[in-house]
Amino acid sequence: MKILVIQGPNLNLLGERETQIYGEESLEALHQRLVDYGSDKKILVHAIQSNHEGAIIDAIQQARNEYDGIIVNAGAYTHYSYAIRDALAAVTIPIVEVHISNIYRRQEFRHQSVIAPVVCGQIVGLGVHGYFLAIDYLVNHYESSKGKLNQ
Amino acid sequence: MKILVIQGPNLNLLGERETQIYGEESLEALHQRLVDYGSDKKILVHAIQSNHEGAIIDAIQQARNEYDGIIVNAGAYTHYSYAIRDALAAVTIPIVEVHISNIYRRQEFRHQSVIAPVVCGQIVGLGVHGYFLAIDYLVNHYESSKGKLNQ
Amino acid sequence: MKILVIQGPNLNLLGERETQIYGEESLEALHQRLVDYGSDKKILVHAIQSNHEGAIIDAIQQARNEYDGIIVNAGAYTHYSYAIRDALAAVTIPIVEVHISNIYRRQEFRHQSVIAPVVCGQIVGLGVHGYFLAIDYLVNHYESSKGKLNQ
Amino acid sequence: MKILVIQGPNLNLLGERETQIYGEESLEALHQRLVDYGSDKKILVHAIQSNHEGAIIDAIQQARNEYDGIIVNAGAYTHYSYAIRDALAAVTIPIVEVHISNIYRRQEFRHQSVIAPVVCGQIVGLGVHGYFLAIDYLVNHYESSKGKLNQ
Amino acid sequence: MKILVIQGPNLNLLGERETQIYGEESLEALHQRLVDYGSDKKILVHAIQSNHEGAIIDAIQQARNEYDGIIVNAGAYTHYSYAIRDALAAVTIPIVEVHISNIYRRQEFRHQSVIAPVVCGQIVGLGVHGYFLAIDYLVNHYESSKGKLNQ
Amino acid sequence: MKILVIQGPNLNLLGERETQIYGEESLEALHQRLVDYGSDKKILVHAIQSNHEGAIIDAIQQARNEYDGIIVNAGAYTHYSYAIRDALAAVTIPIVEVHISNIYRRQEFRHQSVIAPVVCGQIVGLGVHGYFLAIDYLVNHYESSKGKLNQ
Amino acid sequence: MKILVIQGPNLNLLGERETQIYGEESLEALHQRLVDYGSDKKILVHAIQSNHEGAIIDAIQQARNEYDGIIVNAGAYTHYSYAIRDALAAVTIPIVEVHISNIYRRQEFRHQSVIAPVVCGQIVGLGVHGYFLAIDYLVNHYESSKGKLNQ
Amino acid sequence: MKILVIQGPNLNLLGERETQIYGEESLEALHQRLVDYGSDKKILVHAIQSNHEGAIIDAIQQARNEYDGIIVNAGAYTHYSYAIRDALAAVTIPIVEVHISNIYRRQEFRHQSVIAPVVCGQIVGLGVHGYFLAIDYLVNHYESSKGKLNQ
Amino acid sequence: MKILVIQGPNLNLLGERETQIYGEESLEALHQRLVDYGSDKKILVHAIQSNHEGAIIDAIQQARNEYDGIIVNAGAYTHYSYAIRDALAAVTIPIVEVHISNIYRRQEFRHQSVIAPVVCGQIVGLGVHGYFLAIDYLVNHYESSKGKLNQ
Amino acid sequence: MKILVIQGPNLNLLGERETQIYGEESLEALHQRLVDYGSDKKILVHAIQSNHEGAIIDAIQQARNEYDGIIVNAGAYTHYSYAIRDALAAVTIPIVEVHISNIYRRQEFRHQSVIAPVVCGQIVGLGVHGYFLAIDYLVNHYESSKGKLNQ
Amino acid sequence: MKILVIQGPNLNLLGERETQIYGEESLEALHQRLVDYGSDKKILVHAIQSNHEGAIIDAIQQARNEYDGIIVNAGAYTHYSYAIRDALAAVTIPIVEVHISNIYRRQEFRHQSVIAPVVCGQIVGLGVHGYFLAIDYLVNHYESSKGKLNQ
Amino acid sequence: MKILVIQGPNLNLLGERETQIYGEESLEALHQRLVDYGSDKKILVHAIQSNHEGAIIDAIQQARNEYDGIIVNAGAYTHYSYAIRDALAAVTIPIVEVHISNIYRRQEFRHQSVIAPVVCGQIVGLGVHGYFLAIDYLVNHYESSKGKLNQ
Repeated sequence: MKILVIQGPNLNLLGERETQIYGEESLEALHQRLVDYGSDKKILVHAIQSNHEGAIIDAIQQARNEYDGIIVNAGAYTHYSYAIRDALAAVTIPIVEVHISNIYRRQEFRHQSVIAPVVCGQIVGLGVHGYFLAIDYLVNHYESSKGKLNQ
Repeated sequence: MKILVIQGPNLNLLGERETQIYGEESLEALHQRLVDYGSDKKILVHAIQSNHEGAIIDAIQQARNEYDGIIVNAGAYTHYSYAIRDALAAVTIPIVEVHISNIYRRQEFRHQSVIAPVVCGQIVGLGVHGYFLAIDYLVNHYESSKGKLNQ
Repeated sequence: MKILVIQGPNLNLLGERETQIYGEESLEALHQRLVDYGSDKKILVHAIQSNHEGAIIDAIQQARNEYDGIIVNAGAYTHYSYAIRDALAAVTIPIVEVHISNIYRRQEFRHQSVIAPVVCGQIVGLGVHGYFLAIDYLVNHYESSKGKLNQ
Repeated sequence: MKILVIQGPNLNLLGERETQIYGEESLEALHQRLVDYGSDKKILVHAIQSNHEGAIIDAIQQARNEYDGIIVNAGAYTHYSYAIRDALAAVTIPIVEVHISNIYRRQEFRHQSVIAPVVCGQIVGLGVHGYFLAIDYLVNHYESSKGKLNQ
Repeated sequence: MKILVIQGPNLNLLGERETQIYGEESLEALHQRLVDYGSDKKILVHAIQSNHEGAIIDAIQQARNEYDGIIVNAGAYTHYSYAIRDALAAVTIPIVEVHISNIYRRQEFRHQSVIAPVVCGQIVGLGVHGYFLAIDYLVNHYESSKGKLNQ
Repeated sequence: MKILVIQGPNLNLLGERETQIYGEESLEALHQRLVDYGSDKKILVHAIQSNHEGAIIDAIQQARNEYDGIIVNAGAYTHYSYAIRDALAAVTIPIVEVHISNIYRRQEFRHQSVIAPVVCGQIVGLGVHGYFLAIDYLVNHYESSKGKLNQ
Repeated sequence: MKILVIQGPNLNLLGERETQIYGEESLEALHQRLVDYGSDKKILVHAIQSNHEGAIIDAIQQARNEYDGIIVNAGAYTHYSYAIRDALAAVTIPIVEVHISNIYRRQEFRHQSVIAPVVCGQIVGLGVHGYFLAIDYLVNHYESSKGKLNQ
Repeated sequence: MKILVIQGPNLNLLGERETQIYGEESLEALHQRLVDYGSDKKILVHAIQSNHEGAIIDAIQQARNEYDGIIVNAGAYTHYSYAIRDALAAVTIPIVEVHISNIYRRQEFRHQSVIAPVVCGQIVGLGVHGYFLAIDYLVNHYESSKGKLNQ
Repeated sequence: MKILVIQGPNLNLLGERETQIYGEESLEALHQRLVDYGSDKKILVHAIQSNHEGAIIDAIQQARNEYDGIIVNAGAYTHYSYAIRDALAAVTIPIVEVHISNIYRRQEFRHQSVIAPVVCGQIVGLGVHGYFLAIDYLVNHYESSKGKLNQ
Repeated sequence: MKILVIQGPNLNLLGERETQIYGEESLEALHQRLVDYGSDKKILVHAIQSNHEGAIIDAIQQARNEYDGIIVNAGAYTHYSYAIRDALAAVTIPIVEVHISNIYRRQEFRHQSVIAPVVCGQIVGLGVHGYFLAIDYLVNHYESSKGKLNQ
Repeated sequence: MKILVIQGPNLNLLGERETQIYGEESLEALHQRLVDYGSDKKILVHAIQSNHEGAIIDAIQQARNEYDGIIVNAGAYTHYSYAIRDALAAVTIPIVEVHISNIYRRQEFRHQSVIAPVVCGQIVGLGVHGYFLAIDYLVNHYESSKGKLNQ
Repeated sequence: MKILVIQGPNLNLLGERETQIYGEESLEALHQRLVDYGSDKKILVHAIQSNHEGAIIDAIQQARNEYDGIIVNAGAYTHYSYAIRDALAAVTIPIVEVHISNIYRRQEFRHQSVIAPVVCGQIVGLGVHGYFLAIDYLVNHYESSKGKLNQ
């Protein structure tokens, strides 16, 4: 099983900016922990980050045939990128949207996610722990699907 | 460690209504599984359901001194009960909001949660699996807090 | 055939408050007339009233298996109780929404019924006569359904 | 006693278009049934249809002095014809607004009736049965008014 | 000089409906007074009324080449008939919009005139006297234009 | 008979600014013409101008007992001065609101007059001629009132 | 003279939660002080609290015939309970709405009170002192009414 | 193959009004060119114009059984005639909406077409050339449908 | 202790206009009663009124150093004068906003107070009695502050 | 003559995703057909696709001096990319906007095109056939322009 | 060259209120520095302040013929004084709007400037330094205009 | 001291498009002038332009550690790029937003800057001169900060 983690704009600054909201762990450290966590479960986790909307769309399109699940934190693009939404909507593998902070406690514009209607679900405000829960969900989902197919 | 699961209006019909959205498991069966899941982790999970807004508020207020975490799915009250919001805001233990279905794929009125700004975070659209992830989060949170206190 | 009439908050004051709008008949008298009217048609009409949103939801849920039709005047809950809406949506027997006064001649907030999309239809502004027309509709509907089944 | 039934635009296609919503009975057949129903009650029912807003206004104005009640289904004009509203407002005989389908389950624009504030009341979503209930209401209203006058 | 007075829907009921707002004079009497008033000033006043939006548009189009000024009270069409607006916008002779009642004291929907941006000006709320003032304006405007041309 | 003409902010620049909209006549010249026009009709016209909202309110309050009619062009205060509105609402003599330009052809914010609901009526877009028509209306109104009192 | 004080949801936590906003006095202590204050003025003050919307409606309905005045702080129900509004509107004795904190300095949703239009008036933001001022008002109002009756 | 072209209000003034937007060709000339264009392709094109909403609805209803495609430019009715929308929705033959000018460069009210959701598609802003493209589309559509039927 | 009472536009007409809303007492009489009431409590009450927004701002600014509390009824400026709001926000002594009538029963525009967020609190709809309650509050507040300072 | 076809985000998935809306032809196949179609008419058609907003802007800017017409389907960028709008607005050659599906039948957010006001016109909902019609329009436009220049 | 600096309501409190936003320099000191700064550049700077909207309008009108540039900080009037806007719009000399604080970081109502569309430009949030930059701009603008005239 | 100037989409067309708004100087020429201007003040100015949102974010992130100030004109991204906003918010060096034209005189969508709340301030509508004023501000700010540090 293969999972792609896609991190959107400014998430490369994790651990540097607004650490009271996002924590002090760097993106590299987090990604390493996610890979290790997958590794323990015998699954391959690959994580990327980009500030470019187009690059994120490219990555989603490529993931369609190569991965079994996507975890996406589209950063600020969450709130207006209908282009990323369309890319996600074209994907048939399960997708989980993650936000590190509780976006409903922050500015008004962060309260709407234009991608929410095209993903399976969201994990919001549970810190970087949300990514690990998302992996758990995807693994669980993958196994129960496979279970059904095997019947 | 003790966790209270609060289920709001009409969730007692789980497994009976709109099973294509909510699945076929009954609320009783789900609650039993949650208790067992906690039990495996040596924590006590207690789960209640009510159609009465006031009863939900009463339960939240009582939980303040007796539990170490709350998981709440306020059903339709999610979208307008500022009274439940105020009760949750008065609680200092961590709270996770869970929705079984992806509320952003459904009617407009379900897109806003008035309690979201006063909880730690949300798990939305991951089916009943969301309750188990919420327990994981609370346990993890509890242990890292205790860790900090012990230092 | 059995019909449940559910009256929402403040309808117990019928005949006492704003009699120029609601008429002078008390709720008890009206309910008796509805029972008698049903009785003439060989059907059982049962009528209840509550000021409690939760109690109304409980009643709707119980009616699901015991009655063949529901007539509901949810009073002010009509305009914001998505919880009652969800309860009604979980019911498969026919439901008619009744309002004694013409709610479109009154304050702005009374113009929207959040339960309207989940009932069969509405009878509005025809005074207490609306309840009798609702019974006629349900009886007619019941008989034509049975007719179809018998074919 | 004389009742005028006014059918608005596209209702002449009844039984032809969207039959899953409107049923398969033609407008002619329905009108005949309404006339017969009135006839059984010793009242005269006359029914007309027009696609022309102005023709509907003309008909309402003429009915003012010739009929004892109006049943109106203004079709799509319901949602924007303030001119029909003004014509109805100038009428002192009782008016019942009927909609065959539950307009609150359909597109947003159908949720508002600009004529609702100037009629006695509405019967919505009860199929063509609504017209018969409207006749019942008007007859009942007519007789209780006459009763009062005779006292 | 020739002036056309166009009266919209329901204005034929002048003197009959809502007389506390519109006064007790009939439309015929008013029109006769307008003709006489023009006659005293050696100008021809012609006045028509229609409940039909299309007929009003036809009349406006015809007036383009035959009259030197238009006075229009489009009744309820004032508030939504962009088709009448377009017809008026295609006219190059001066147009005055008249409303008998003060539309800003009445329902919200009467506060907007969609034709106001394409006429010279409006006279609102001054009773039927407004038509006479409108004639005065058009005559004055006509004479000062002619004066300019003669220079 | 005495009429007060109140001109609001920036109308003292009449004839100087935006002459293509407002014409080239100065405010002084206009006021003189209004006085003369009244004089011909044996009525006293007094005209004032102020840029100060408070001064306009003071003037309205004083006019209550000294004049028989008010003509007001509140300039930009028209669109937001609820204080001037309240002053006008406290006046029982007839008031006519005048705007030289057609405010519905200009910026959005000029489309709403907060004083319109408390005056008798409006004359809009007919140039400075509107003031003369307003005098005509007030004189006509005054005489017909006196006529009624004398009966 | 008898006054009923009705406290809505979460006010039982007074003195416990958000003490920088609500102060440190408990609800019991406050209620005792209100009773004593009334007692000094020879009036009976009774105070209740409930988290249940329906229970608050029941209490208001009962107060109709037993009390001479109501002081109500509906907590978060203030902002959406049209059912409580209807119950208060059915009461003919004077009602004063009290809010301890200045609701206009807090979240947007707290800025609207749906019950404000059906009470005599509001005292907002003056701390628990507001309840005592409300008693003063009701006593003053009661005595001036009685004075008028005795004349 | 038969195509009906329906032109709405004020389009009969084509070539006369706002020629910088609509061009200088008259409607008659355009209709003749459309007929000829069809004729070259061995299809019958018939074109009508009306200022009457009701007449346009009548024409659409009649076209249902007599034509193989409709081209409609509903003029200003485009923006509010839900009655025309309903008539078009009842038609099963393909419909193309045409606007001569780019309605998105003009007033706000022209930006919404209430008929757009019930037609196949729109051609906007390409001048009268749009009608010819619409014919091309309908012919192409007709032939590929026939092709499928013949397989 | 010194208290300044500031009355806004049109309050000088108290007792003259809309006496069914505002009562029949003149502003002078009310102000004398307020002075006397203060005098009984050994505090100095000074009361002023102005129709001028700027004069009200000047008065607030001057009161900053000379008074121990402000009672303000800004009349219609309440609803739009952000300049008065800024002046009040710059004051550090306690401020109570008073409205004689229940502004929530009146026009929509009166429902919002732009100064409410910068005052301590509001007393609304309790008639002129509100001013006396405001004095009571300020005295109470002053004494408890002094008490704290003396500790 | 040279025409550039610009395809926006996710259009490279044509034929793969939502084939019931977009058809089964791949983008490559469509582009080849467009090139061939141009070739038949002796014009050069070049077609590109990008998921990157910036790359689309770059392409538009380059096309300014190299092409005689642009056909643009900006995909989801249509609904929010004011940057693409500005790039198109800086182009003086004719531009046609194409949408394969009828965007007015889909989600609300797809109903607005921010680029519509700066292009010549739109072809919407006519399937991939729309691109061919757009070429026809541009060729026709090019030739009539050239014709004018040659005169 | 002569420049007028106009300071609106409450700016006389500069250095006294909200010093963390506005700094500690008094208005007098700032004005002296502006005069000196101008003096160094051989230009005359005159600075005034008023809390009165009308006085600000008077000052703007007078400046029309006496100054070569205006710098305006209209304080809270910025957000609603269409009367000041009209005065500024009547001025033909260049105007620069200055705000000391970043109004986009503050309350919603401060985000809109109704005068912005009628000035040359704005300098916002750069502290009192903004006034000096505004002088630089006006001097630069003045000299380049003069340069053009001299050519 | 080092300053980075970031120019957003389509600003590379400066001097080519809409020259009546933006002037005739090319971006290269402007950038050279800015470099020279800095050079005269012994500071290093570097200027870049990109049409790519992601590239602008990359540039802002890199500038965090290398520059002492940023001047940003984000072009159309100003109005919707929350991703650029987040990048700017993560920067601790001072940022000035510049717009060449007065965006409040142009289309509605240009009136909102989503980056305004996270920069120090804005200079709008003062032409390319705004960039030079921004340099002056940053230099002044830099020196006064250094002054404070040296104390």
